[in-house]
Amino acid sequence: MGATESWKLAGEHKRNALLALIPSEWRLAQPLPSPEDVPDLRKGTIQSYLSCREISCLHEIFFQAALRDADACDLYIKKHGKPIGALHGLPVSLKDVVNIKDVDTTMGFVGLVGNATSISRESQIATLLRRLGAVLFVKTSVPTGSFTIDTFNNIIEHTANPCNRRFNVGGSSGGEGGLLALKGSPLGMGTDIGGSVRVPAVWNGCYGIRPSTGRVPYEGTSSLVDGQTAIPFVLGFMAPLPEAITHAMRSLLSLSPWMNDPLVHEIPWREEIYTQFKESASGVFQLSFGIMRTDHYVNVQPPVQRAMDIVVNKLKSLGHSKRAVTIDGGKAFHEAIKLSGEPPHRVDLGLVDAAKPVPATVFGLLPQPEASATEINGINIAIRDYRRSYLEYWNSTAEITGTGRPVDVFLMPVAPTPAPVRGKVRYFGYSTLANVLDFTACGIPVTEVQKDIDRYDDEDYVPLNELDKLVHDDYDPVLSDGTPVGIQVVGRRLQEEKVLAIAEVIGNTVNDLSERGNIKL
Amino acid sequence: MGATESWKLAGEHKRNALLALIPSEWRLAQPLPSPEDVPDLRKGTIQSYLSCREISCLHEIFFQAALRDADACDLYIKKHGKPIGALHGLPVSLKDVVNIKDVDTTMGFVGLVGNATSISRESQIATLLRRLGAVLFVKTSVPTGSFTIDTFNNIIEHTANPCNRRFNVGGSSGGEGGLLALKGSPLGMGTDIGGSVRVPAVWNGCYGIRPSTGRVPYEGTSSLVDGQTAIPFVLGFMAPLPEAITHAMRSLLSLSPWMNDPLVHEIPWREEIYTQFKESASGVFQLSFGIMRTDHYVNVQPPVQRAMDIVVNKLKSLGHSKRAVTIDGGKAFHEAIKLSGEPPHRVDLGLVDAAKPVPATVFGLLPQPEASATEINGINIAIRDYRRSYLEYWNSTAEITGTGRPVDVFLMPVAPTPAPVRGKVRYFGYSTLANVLDFTACGIPVTEVQKDIDRYDDEDYVPLNELDKLVHDDYDPVLSDGTPVGIQVVGRRLQEEKVLAIAEVIGNTVNDLSERGNIKL
Repeated sequence: MGATESWKLAGEHKRNALLALIPSEWRLAQPLPSPEDVPDLRKGTIQSYLSCREISCLHEIFFQAALRDADACDLYIKKHGKPIGALHGLPVSLKDVVNIKDVDTTMGFVGLVGNATSISRESQIATLLRRLGAVLFVKTSVPTGSFTIDTFNNIIEHTANPCNRRFNVGGSSGGEGGLLALKGSPLGMGTDIGGSVRVPAVWNGCYGIRPSTGRVPYEGTSSLVDGQTAIPFVLGFMAPLPEAITHAMRSLLSLSPWMNDPLVHEIPWREEIYTQFKESASGVFQLSFGIMRTDHYVNVQPPVQRAMDIVVNKLKSLGHSKRAVTIDGGKAFHEAIKLSGEPPHRVDLGLVDAAKPVPATVFGLLPQPEASATEINGINIAIRDYRRSYLEYWNSTAEITGTGRPVDVFLMPVAPTPAPVRGKVRYFGYSTLANVLDFTACGIPVTEVQKDIDRYDDEDYVPLNELDKLVHDDYDPVLSDGTPVGIQVVGRRLQEEKVLAIAEVIGNTVNDLSERGNIKL
Repeated sequence: MGATESWKLAGEHKRNALLALIPSEWRLAQPLPSPEDVPDLRKGTIQSYLSCREISCLHEIFFQAALRDADACDLYIKKHGKPIGALHGLPVSLKDVVNIKDVDTTMGFVGLVGNATSISRESQIATLLRRLGAVLFVKTSVPTGSFTIDTFNNIIEHTANPCNRRFNVGGSSGGEGGLLALKGSPLGMGTDIGGSVRVPAVWNGCYGIRPSTGRVPYEGTSSLVDGQTAIPFVLGFMAPLPEAITHAMRSLLSLSPWMNDPLVHEIPWREEIYTQFKESASGVFQLSFGIMRTDHYVNVQPPVQRAMDIVVNKLKSLGHSKRAVTIDGGKAFHEAIKLSGEPPHRVDLGLVDAAKPVPATVFGLLPQPEASATEINGINIAIRDYRRSYLEYWNSTAEITGTGRPVDVFLMPVAPTPAPVRGKVRYFGYSTLANVLDFTACGIPVTEVQKDIDRYDDEDYVPLNELDKLVHDDYDPVLSDGTPVGIQVVGRRLQEEKVLAIAEVIGNTVNDLSERGNIKL
């Protein structure tokens, strides 16, 4: 048996072991119809299979432990007459990188299958969620190494987008996105280093926050780039409803996570800021929004453009319109794209070389030469200078908003496209901006692709560049019909309260709240 | 003329140019008596020269600009009927690394003399101090490269300790220490990467705070290790009076420095914490103090031991004694010492090799091989893990304090010795601990060496190691007589309000407040 076959078998073995964890009475009697026949598993389809879900996005299943934890919750409330905490009994799903007792953390590597015994300590976030009474029950799929938008690995292979199974679920928190799209969890956690929470959130019709570093404890979470401080991973909540994220953030910060994680800043949840911006965004006070419709490098496809229009028009209707300021992503933005912010692996932040096929991982196919200390210091300085110049730019908008304040937040696409087919994730620039700036950003679902409306109207189209042309030509309105489309609200650093307040108002204004009744586990 | 002579001449030229900036009527008619005859310039001596100060600790003099700024202050108050800000008209001195318009920043390098024209932007801290109405008037001396405790460079050569001119003034903010010792400035700023604020503060009978990173804007300040994020330099205030530091911190944070410096966290000055601990430390509520008398690697000399005793006894008298907990610096502490936290230059944190002569700079005499990205990530992880384990240790003290809380702060020496003679700065371990942990630490003056009391009483002395023996044998009570001795208050990360409140109470309790009348510029 060759080495190649060995890892294939190991992956298959883990896949089968996972499948075996699903009670036989929960399984499908018949395979699902093909993605071509039934692309969208939501809207009635999943309900017809509700007792027998397909294994499509789960890396680890620990229902038995979860049931024991749920029993413990019941026992606690019986004994003490009060809940354990603000998430008492709530099932919470986690991206595979979060370490859980007695559960593997493979990050999608076949070679790490079976490493549960080596996990001596749970991630800090898991400990804190348990202290709040949450019931952890599954860990969700990631791309190999947890580092690209396309969720494929040799353990559970491709995770399909349940909203349109021919499409990419997004990544790297792809499994979370897929699970949440099917309402398989009320609250999940992903990690984001370049869009890995926000992209799978909006490609699956959900919300997802990329908090600034230092707000949510990352301590003890697995990462291939652990110790890299320039642009680190951050943990962020994902959910079908924005209030779930707010509730989770508020509850988490009530535990003073800075007492245990040395990288968390002592900033409690600031309810007064949240309330102020919730009221303001609802139209009580005028806010000013920066609007970034394009970064002038890769233009967005028609449905994303329409999602931006929907939000801007809704804000107009709330009385905020006159304060809208067009944030020019241009020059400063491209500097960010060019920054190689990812020592030691020098991940291109955003720009996938259009002339080459997209590699299986952003690390490339072979190890790259390591950056030196001087190069790393230089990157840190370049990022810091870019952040400072962006703050100056942001501050300067006070002169044009008319409110006397700089813009409160800005609105922009998360990606130039809705979920594409596999291999066609071309460009991360829209999502990486917030990571480079360490800004707080929340993805918001806005609409779905409508094949008759969302069409290019550009017979005179002149490509901005080769990549722009690729993205332009990729778009197929018929194939994409019904796929979720979202945007993001971006605030300055450490503005989780403000960003969530505004995201809630925008999200609930543009989405049909009557669907809320369908949210159940 | 050889190369060697060239830099000597360049240094001398700058030195003479500085001297020329002191108006001739301010200069000494006669040279000062020798350090042997008059070691201490305080206590009457400096007063006899008050109109003609010696140039000993100034790198840059900009009295003309300062006088113009002071006139502008007067004009402002006349016009607006209110001060510019909370530091209106206050002269503030700055360590040479802070960039000021039209003024050189040499960091002690002869090769950088004359670089004023290349300084296009002032350091953020200078901008903010000016916004508060401060009048910046001098920049103070540093060791070459601003990186050791011994303030010597080839521009102004050795900066003597004005409290005992045979001794080291400390460093790297050595000029600040010396200037403040003579009450030549009511408020100064130094930078601290391993003790560089606290050591010169207490060796000169002053206070100095090493804030945690992210509290005081460092943006735009010069550094040889710019971009290094593991254990970065921080700016901190130094002053003869602790209230000056508190006032400066409170005023600075009122300007929301996070709006302009991307590395500052949005944590306003928390007056309620300051007030609470000011009252508590005064004896209204019991506090618990951790006490670290030795790190078990290098024991402290008798006067430092006595300084610790003085503070602990004063705390007892305030009712805090029963809660005193001996913090064991032992194992965890030595791990910190071994950490090489200074990429790319791999500065030894604390430990100077006893077997070798102390190098002229901590960078060594020749460039060292650069650390790789993997090594730097490894260092970042090691530091983070150490910080986490120290937090766990600190949290665990709740079980023994009796207050139900972990210890509030801990008290420890800043250095094992008072100011030593040149070449005998042996060990930085006591000061670097706070830098490795990113803890808030404030140096406090406590007493002065008393040659008859502060004597070793250890006929059975067994050296802990060769370095301990060197430090032990260095001590000369007669030579050190009258030299200032201090300790430090160390709080968790981002605890500036708490640490300053406690430092004020301790400092004012152990120091003779009747001397306060002497503080003037």
